[in-house]
Amino acid sequence: METDKGLLIVLSGPSGVGKGTVRKAVFSEPDISFEYSISATSRPMRPGEIDGVDYFFKTREQFEQMIQDGELLEYTEYVGNYYGTPVQYVKDTLSEGKDVFLEIEVEGAKQVREKFPDGLFIFLIPPSLSELENRIKTRGTESDELIKNRMLVAREELKMMNLYDYVIENDRVDHAVKKIKAIVIAEHCRRTRIEKRIKKLLGVD
Amino acid sequence: METDKGLLIVLSGPSGVGKGTVRKAVFSEPDISFEYSISATSRPMRPGEIDGVDYFFKTREQFEQMIQDGELLEYTEYVGNYYGTPVQYVKDTLSEGKDVFLEIEVEGAKQVREKFPDGLFIFLIPPSLSELENRIKTRGTESDELIKNRMLVAREELKMMNLYDYVIENDRVDHAVKKIKAIVIAEHCRRTRIEKRIKKLLGVD
Repeated sequence: METDKGLLIVLSGPSGVGKGTVRKAVFSEPDISFEYSISATSRPMRPGEIDGVDYFFKTREQFEQMIQDGELLEYTEYVGNYYGTPVQYVKDTLSEGKDVFLEIEVEGAKQVREKFPDGLFIFLIPPSLSELENRIKTRGTESDELIKNRMLVAREELKMMNLYDYVIENDRVDHAVKKIKAIVIAEHCRRTRIEKRIKKLLGVD
Repeated sequence: METDKGLLIVLSGPSGVGKGTVRKAVFSEPDISFEYSISATSRPMRPGEIDGVDYFFKTREQFEQMIQDGELLEYTEYVGNYYGTPVQYVKDTLSEGKDVFLEIEVEGAKQVREKFPDGLFIFLIPPSLSELENRIKTRGTESDELIKNRMLVAREELKMMNLYDYVIENDRVDHAVKKIKAIVIAEHCRRTRIEKRIKKLLGVD
């Protein structure tokens, strides 16, 4: 029995919108059938984070070696740190027919779109710009200067919405999770993704 | 607060695939937010059917008058009977920002696609051609000649799959319902449908 290829699901959105929180909530659902691709980063570990779970933590030198060796599907330098997606895991998992979920920065998502135009791109937005500023401030790990910088970046990032298939308002985490799950189910029914298998099954062309 | 336009949701598929059963199951769900557009037909009422609930039952003469007066969004003559969608209800409901659900024959869906290219078109398929024949036979309301005719029509109808956005296998009614609900949620997050409102909301262009 022929199976469809796995979907590459990309969740992105402006800095501070809550991508990480939503991603964790998605993966705490009992009926999730997709695999999480863990990012690599050169930023320092935050309290409570675990290497190989939240990120693969690398030094700048290690990260730059990975770039040179073509081991990254995408990467970006953001507020002084590298973030990127190891490519091998993504390729292997998709070719097994499983869906892969990436939660990445806007700049990285742009690179993935170029390499995987058939990917499923979801853009998370804040309910308002002032709400976004509140969220960045409440995180409390950055200085005033960094917060100002982040807001400038975020406004630019919001303009990248045009590259995405879906836009989800992160008003409540459970709403966003429900919508992401629905989008993945729907995309598995998208005619252009499955018609080859279906037509073979029913003996029509 | 600006709202998005209502979605026109069209469920179709070959004769005997179980469109009516799936449609009824969809509308028996507690959290459905779309309106059902009741079709008009000139076919005789079957036992258990109610005028104005299952269909608006019309004579051939009444139906032909509706065609002449431009009161139908689509219509088709199928195995000797007319089936069609009264247009006014659909237009009124969409302009109120509500979703409208049509369950119609394949030929009618083609006409709706021409008038509403932005509609959401879902094609229901049987698990196999032999399963489709079983279902047509079990219905038990048609003669052998009609069954043979229906199977010929169904094979042609399956080829119309290309006009649809989504394809759902009707292996189990509850699976089909879950997928239809997911598709509607997903389409309300589709960037091209909502970006105008979202960009205004966030003050970006």
